Amino acid sequence: MCEANAYLVKEGREELVLEDISILRPEKDELYLQNIFGEQKRIKARIKEMNLIDHRIVLEQG
Amino acid sequence: MCEANAYLVKEGREELVLEDISILRPEKDELYLQNIFGEQKRIKARIKEMNLIDHRIVLEQG
Repeated sequence: MCEANAYLVKEGREELVLEDISILRPEKDELYLQNIFGEQKRIKARIKEMNLIDHRIVLEQG
Repeated sequence: MCEANAYLVKEGREELVLEDISILRPEKDELYLQNIFGEQKRIKARIKEMNLIDHRIVLEQG
């Protein structure tokens, strides 16, 4: 499967935000995340880098 | 493989920007895109929505 995990960089460390994300949508100053299990999350962050081969979405506080 | 294609919405239509993207990184007012063949592109756009299951990254002009 091709979903990715989102991590938030906080004080130099990566904290897992949500696994198996299928949908990501920026909304004003938030990011809307939805995973393949239907879990949804909104987080005040922006994308730092995504690597789809590694299934990683790295976020930083916005 | 889990790469995705990026499309830019322009006048209501989607224009293919780059296929088989592995890396995406926001840089100031641009997005840096790199695909699995090593092709690189910078585009003045922002992410509108990503759907990793559909392998789609939809961009809009920033």
